[in-house]
Amino acid sequence: MDVVDLIRSKRDGSDLRDDAIDWVIAAYTRGEVAEEQMSALLMAIFFVGLTAPELNRWTAAMIASGERLSFPGLGKPTTDKHSTGGVGDKITLPLTPIVAACGAAVPQLSGRGLGHTGGTLDKLESIRGWRASISNEEMRAQLRDVGAVICAAGAGLAPADRKLYALRDVTATVESIPLIASSIMSKKIAEGTSALVLDVKVGVGAFMKDRSRARELATTMVGLGSAHGVNTIALLTAMDTPLGLMAGNALEVAESLEVLAGGGPSDVVELTLALAREMLAACGLTGGKEPADAIADGSAMDSWNAMIRAQGGDPAAPLPVSPHRHSVVAAASGRVTRMDALAVGVAAWRLGAGRARKEDDVSFGAGVQMHAKPGDIVMAGSPLFTLYADDEARFDRALGALAGAVDVAAADEAWSKPALVLERVGA
Amino acid sequence: MDVVDLIRSKRDGSDLRDDAIDWVIAAYTRGEVAEEQMSALLMAIFFVGLTAPELNRWTAAMIASGERLSFPGLGKPTTDKHSTGGVGDKITLPLTPIVAACGAAVPQLSGRGLGHTGGTLDKLESIRGWRASISNEEMRAQLRDVGAVICAAGAGLAPADRKLYALRDVTATVESIPLIASSIMSKKIAEGTSALVLDVKVGVGAFMKDRSRARELATTMVGLGSAHGVNTIALLTAMDTPLGLMAGNALEVAESLEVLAGGGPSDVVELTLALAREMLAACGLTGGKEPADAIADGSAMDSWNAMIRAQGGDPAAPLPVSPHRHSVVAAASGRVTRMDALAVGVAAWRLGAGRARKEDDVSFGAGVQMHAKPGDIVMAGSPLFTLYADDEARFDRALGALAGAVDVAAADEAWSKPALVLERVGA
Repeated sequence: MDVVDLIRSKRDGSDLRDDAIDWVIAAYTRGEVAEEQMSALLMAIFFVGLTAPELNRWTAAMIASGERLSFPGLGKPTTDKHSTGGVGDKITLPLTPIVAACGAAVPQLSGRGLGHTGGTLDKLESIRGWRASISNEEMRAQLRDVGAVICAAGAGLAPADRKLYALRDVTATVESIPLIASSIMSKKIAEGTSALVLDVKVGVGAFMKDRSRARELATTMVGLGSAHGVNTIALLTAMDTPLGLMAGNALEVAESLEVLAGGGPSDVVELTLALAREMLAACGLTGGKEPADAIADGSAMDSWNAMIRAQGGDPAAPLPVSPHRHSVVAAASGRVTRMDALAVGVAAWRLGAGRARKEDDVSFGAGVQMHAKPGDIVMAGSPLFTLYADDEARFDRALGALAGAVDVAAADEAWSKPALVLERVGA
Repeated sequence: MDVVDLIRSKRDGSDLRDDAIDWVIAAYTRGEVAEEQMSALLMAIFFVGLTAPELNRWTAAMIASGERLSFPGLGKPTTDKHSTGGVGDKITLPLTPIVAACGAAVPQLSGRGLGHTGGTLDKLESIRGWRASISNEEMRAQLRDVGAVICAAGAGLAPADRKLYALRDVTATVESIPLIASSIMSKKIAEGTSALVLDVKVGVGAFMKDRSRARELATTMVGLGSAHGVNTIALLTAMDTPLGLMAGNALEVAESLEVLAGGGPSDVVELTLALAREMLAACGLTGGKEPADAIADGSAMDSWNAMIRAQGGDPAAPLPVSPHRHSVVAAASGRVTRMDALAVGVAAWRLGAGRARKEDDVSFGAGVQMHAKPGDIVMAGSPLFTLYADDEARFDRALGALAGAVDVAAADEAWSKPALVLERVGA
């Protein structure tokens, strides 16, 4: 197999043969195809694309680069969720125990934050003692006994994706729908879930700013899941405004606990329940316990406590809070009509909640608390945000990110709440 | 300067700023931009292209990566030729001393062969004692005293091009007009000639199969030369049929000597004289000695002898001839209507005249001698080719390349000779 011919062929618009795809992914993972050759191929794919059969094979080759988990003998179906990432998106935290409390097993392999969107593992690590890394055997046992696992993906899962992702990051080849879809789906399929619900975010705070591109990504991923025997559906959901009132690691855990206790911001509750219903339907658990009932009867909170304890965490320990606070107040009275998700995400990141480089530490107690959301009436001088940081020097740059992030209009002007769930993409 | 932003910007169709181009070429040459990042940028340029101002700056940055020669005080103008490469293309050999004999100085920096086209330096090295590498000072002295130099480009000339070319070769980013044009022109401009004639080959034996692409390349290179103060013109010339009757290193030197002695195949003579007139006109030497007169009066042969001796060669030494010969005869009687240049080039390559890898040695005595060309009448059983090789085992694969390479039609069928010089592209 000649890699230069293979790159040229894709560059010139030909479809790659199955054996060529199998070979190039395997040889790249082994280090036999050079980084500069794979980056040229990825850029050619950015321009030319991959057909559905090519993408299925490409994803299969990525899965085949490592181990594929499976969970026989649990006595309950597996179902999982993946979000393409947004600001304040802590949905995995309440969602996983709710779905487990309704009778499914949720093998939720999660990631860390990079850039302005937070990472589920970073959030959970703000809980004293909790550890993200567990063995495959521990994962199986926890799925059987608790039904809920949120943990780091092991190094054995789709190692081709880890190499490809690092390469795409430094070669401006991230923004390609087939490459995004195969990266997400190779890990989710290798993880061994039988059903998957994708939360594809659209808007200023999301990776996809444009609804038609988001729909294309959702359709592509649903097709990939189905082709690999995973019952997959996707919801397109709005990410123009942050989800909930908290953006930051421990702050989002606290908000998730409010949801599990029966309270919490209405948008977080709405999206959590919508995704929970989809996850249960996708794995065939219809007509059983309703997600809202799992909150009401306390069984979801029980699942949470069991899940945190099983991974060494103390669910009763106080959550860390950064010592320094700074308040941002409304300049005028009226109705909040816009709160920019990207601005809030960047502010939380700059306060220390996120990391600039993979090797950085995050601050668990840092972040942004919102006191009003679009639709709410505020008075001039009343608080819009409280910023939390471990170091006062961080406030200046966070405030810079928030400049112009909020619009306030006359309270009597017409305003209608935008939809949160925009579309459903089925198989 | 962020290289990922720079790649993304070109990928998404924006023009690169001057300072971005200067930075990326310099940083890549120093090793501060990674190979995988440059290959992604090159593939993006393959798809998006470079505007004329971007390409001028890109080429200037490549020139600025090394030294730029100049030849003041020669008392005569400098002029040079570059061919994009063809089969049997030995034109540089007779052309350089002819133009020198007409009063110009020709600083001809040449290359080695790779693939099915031969390299001028490989051909000249078949002359006993001749050396390709000379210092800049030796080059200046030889230009002043002899007027003709054919030598290897020093390592100090456009080092960015050497790195970029090696990278393009392994990443399928060779076939891009701005990248081809900047590679050729950066070296030619850095070489210090004041006038340049480009021989852009079109046809089955050329890099450019298609006339409109060849015209685009010619126009791009002429524009680049003019923008950098080099008076540049281009001829588009046919490369469907090999040039002359010899393809191979010493074989082509022998044929070049025939031309300098006043004989030689008519196509080689025609193209040599056409290019010589253009080179003289481009450097302002009009109304002086005619190229044909420089052959007739023996002054071109004197220049050849002086040029070869100045670089240690013995122009009177016998040329090497490979010991093994194999004859290919015509299967039918009639008129030769086609002789495939690529097939003949590949056959000569397989006989040992060319190299598969840069580090290979070439055989000086190997190659293909043609006994008939399109337009000629042949008899069944009369010789079409004589193959020369150092090793009889090479004949089989060379014969494979020649299968189907020649068409013979009824002698009374209408046939008209195709043009050799197709178009002239001026500034």
